Amino acid sequence: MPDVVSLIRVKRDNSRALTDAEISWLFRAYLAGEIADEQMAALLMAIYFNGLDGAELRSWTGEMIASGERLDLSMIARPTVDKHSTGGVGDKVSLILAPLVASCGAAVPMLSGRGLGHTGGTLDKLESIPGFRVNLDNSAMRDALAQVNAVIAAAGPGLAPADRRLYALRDVTGTVESIPLIASSIMSKKIAEGTSALVLDVKTGSGAFMRDPARATQLAATMVALGIEHGVRTRALITRMDAPLGRAVGNALEVQEAVAALQGDGPADLMEVTLALAREMLDLAGLPGADPQAAIASGRAHHAWREMVRAQGGDPDAPLPRASEISAALPAPRTGYLTRLDALSVGIAAWRLGAGRARKEDAVDHAAGIRLLAKPGDYVEEGQPLVELHGEHQSRSAYAIEALREAVTVGSEPPAAAAAVIGRVGGQDVEPRRESDS
Amino acid sequence: MPDVVSLIRVKRDNSRALTDAEISWLFRAYLAGEIADEQMAALLMAIYFNGLDGAELRSWTGEMIASGERLDLSMIARPTVDKHSTGGVGDKVSLILAPLVASCGAAVPMLSGRGLGHTGGTLDKLESIPGFRVNLDNSAMRDALAQVNAVIAAAGPGLAPADRRLYALRDVTGTVESIPLIASSIMSKKIAEGTSALVLDVKTGSGAFMRDPARATQLAATMVALGIEHGVRTRALITRMDAPLGRAVGNALEVQEAVAALQGDGPADLMEVTLALAREMLDLAGLPGADPQAAIASGRAHHAWREMVRAQGGDPDAPLPRASEISAALPAPRTGYLTRLDALSVGIAAWRLGAGRARKEDAVDHAAGIRLLAKPGDYVEEGQPLVELHGEHQSRSAYAIEALREAVTVGSEPPAAAAAVIGRVGGQDVEPRRESDS
Repeated sequence: MPDVVSLIRVKRDNSRALTDAEISWLFRAYLAGEIADEQMAALLMAIYFNGLDGAELRSWTGEMIASGERLDLSMIARPTVDKHSTGGVGDKVSLILAPLVASCGAAVPMLSGRGLGHTGGTLDKLESIPGFRVNLDNSAMRDALAQVNAVIAAAGPGLAPADRRLYALRDVTGTVESIPLIASSIMSKKIAEGTSALVLDVKTGSGAFMRDPARATQLAATMVALGIEHGVRTRALITRMDAPLGRAVGNALEVQEAVAALQGDGPADLMEVTLALAREMLDLAGLPGADPQAAIASGRAHHAWREMVRAQGGDPDAPLPRASEISAALPAPRTGYLTRLDALSVGIAAWRLGAGRARKEDAVDHAAGIRLLAKPGDYVEEGQPLVELHGEHQSRSAYAIEALREAVTVGSEPPAAAAAVIGRVGGQDVEPRRESDS
Repeated sequence: MPDVVSLIRVKRDNSRALTDAEISWLFRAYLAGEIADEQMAALLMAIYFNGLDGAELRSWTGEMIASGERLDLSMIARPTVDKHSTGGVGDKVSLILAPLVASCGAAVPMLSGRGLGHTGGTLDKLESIPGFRVNLDNSAMRDALAQVNAVIAAAGPGLAPADRRLYALRDVTGTVESIPLIASSIMSKKIAEGTSALVLDVKTGSGAFMRDPARATQLAATMVALGIEHGVRTRALITRMDAPLGRAVGNALEVQEAVAALQGDGPADLMEVTLALAREMLDLAGLPGADPQAAIASGRAHHAWREMVRAQGGDPDAPLPRASEISAALPAPRTGYLTRLDALSVGIAAWRLGAGRARKEDAVDHAAGIRLLAKPGDYVEEGQPLVELHGEHQSRSAYAIEALREAVTVGSEPPAAAAAVIGRVGGQDVEPRRESDS
């Protein structure tokens, strides 16, 4: 029988790879309470420093999946495909993609999370729609998927329960920011969810978890390899998250912008990312000829949204919550071109207005958030307000404005045009995105 | 108020040094149960990888000392000086040094530990003397010291209790082998013990905790600096631990060899290390003119031993435990010069015979052990037994012999003469040992 201190030492000293049998024993013993949290914490910190090689990571992720149920979606006639984003500011892409890709012939079983910190959560956004239910059991989820081809719901407690325990431990021990641990956490849930194909949106830049593009690409390659090894056709796009995506940040504000996008009225940067991800999803689903732009233009995509909202108890025609106080803020420091509008600052400001939560048990204010009155590249006049704050309390606004103090740069020249999609990881290869892909 | 996850991240990323206030808060919160063991384990593993700088280590060690009592030995008229060894096979030097240095005019307040694994413990060795008591309270210890100038006792629970908790945590989380953590653990107890001066015997080689001389020197320099910073005059010798020290390994066998050494009949390598350490101790105690060799030759050292044993309830004339089964083993593989007799293998073999313990709660067999019939440099005939096994059970002997299978090398040429003392760290300087010192 292995002994946990020896296995911690092996990983600490990087003397050899842990075997499948050792990793299997580690999970079994940890979940049975034979390995203490302090021992697992030491192992996680050793993994933070020395990583996991490909075989170790496959095995580690496999044990996380095997700790719970793996959904069976074989009764769904259409090809299943999902998308996961590592999180950004103003990232309402999931809301658009699920009905859009469903309207093009695929089925989208999307299990999603809530927001914590400065990035919003898809479930919080959907809950700003009156009546919308995100907690579905497995059979209700399968029914919704069979009926309207798209479902966005909370991952249930039966899915990768080992990840829940490990994540809670990582959260209090400073071991969150490890590429293999992040990759196994995300991929164990996505693989257990039962989708046949998966596209990852790995964000990089000031508002992203992975600020450095090289680390984002490494995370993407790690997750793509894991998906493929576990039988899920997987690709990833690396996308820019220096400025917020679109013009709306905050739950109801983002739903509103997503609906506009499904009706053909979305901001350019949001549509670039959304359509690129939609094309990858449709390609992986075996529908390379499907045309998401045509689905939007024809109204099919918006119809699919209304069907999805209704199938989950929501009223697509009900008015969304609206803040009682709306004020223009952040005057442009000079006349010129807006060259920088920092995503992290805007995310923190929206969070301070009440759009996000500091602790898991907090409630969010669905109406709170920020609307951008200008985007990088726009010409602005000195003193012109650059954002609109939506919130209930003047005191919160002052606190939010403080977060925006260093958020913008205005220059004499317009910024160089920058593509929102900056890389692509497909199959085993990491390749720069070619022009023909965009 | 600091937040533990942020402090773990600071150490994990090595982004800056932890401040005195932060380290103080860490210890207070950990001992108060506000920081969980899993958080401390993650921090210890981060320290394993990124170390502690000089100021951090001084503060860390200071908090360990401050967690308990610091003994006051100011009523002792003589200069106090102690020695600590990092542990080796056949290392009975403490038994000789305490009475020897006392017989030369200093007072030796030695708080010692028990053996775990292949290295023996001074307290276990002394307990093979009928009646000898190692558990003395502070006032009994001071009385013995005032009366006979030498005492070897167990460190009480009031001394650096934070080290006890941290050591227990390190033991189960694979974070023992860290130079700053080892240094602070050893030095916090030695500083709290109240000695004015301290000589460290840092062992290196196959039978030592620090196999690599460079790491041993680094540990020595770290401990010497810590001692000086906390007001204890401290020096260190780096000594070789490739072969067992002397010819006896095991509790009663080592007492017997120590008594012989005090009577002028000790093996050369044991005497070289013992006298070098004695001279350093006497020099630090302000007695540079004292002559330990003369103290042995005159019988004063042996007399001091008998007084120390009696003061702690022991009978220096009582026969020591003797194994009921004694057998010669390990025939020389060929005729020639013994060039290698591996300390670790001999240590494990003695442990398997019952001289050591696998778990803290185990008892040791005081009679068990190994006597070396040849030492490196000796000329041996093929088939001549090289060791004598002392133990109670034939089955244990077979298991012990197995540990010795690869323990010896016999060559055609005698091995090059090697000094037992290979380095010295004094004050803030690290310098190679000069010939005139030996």
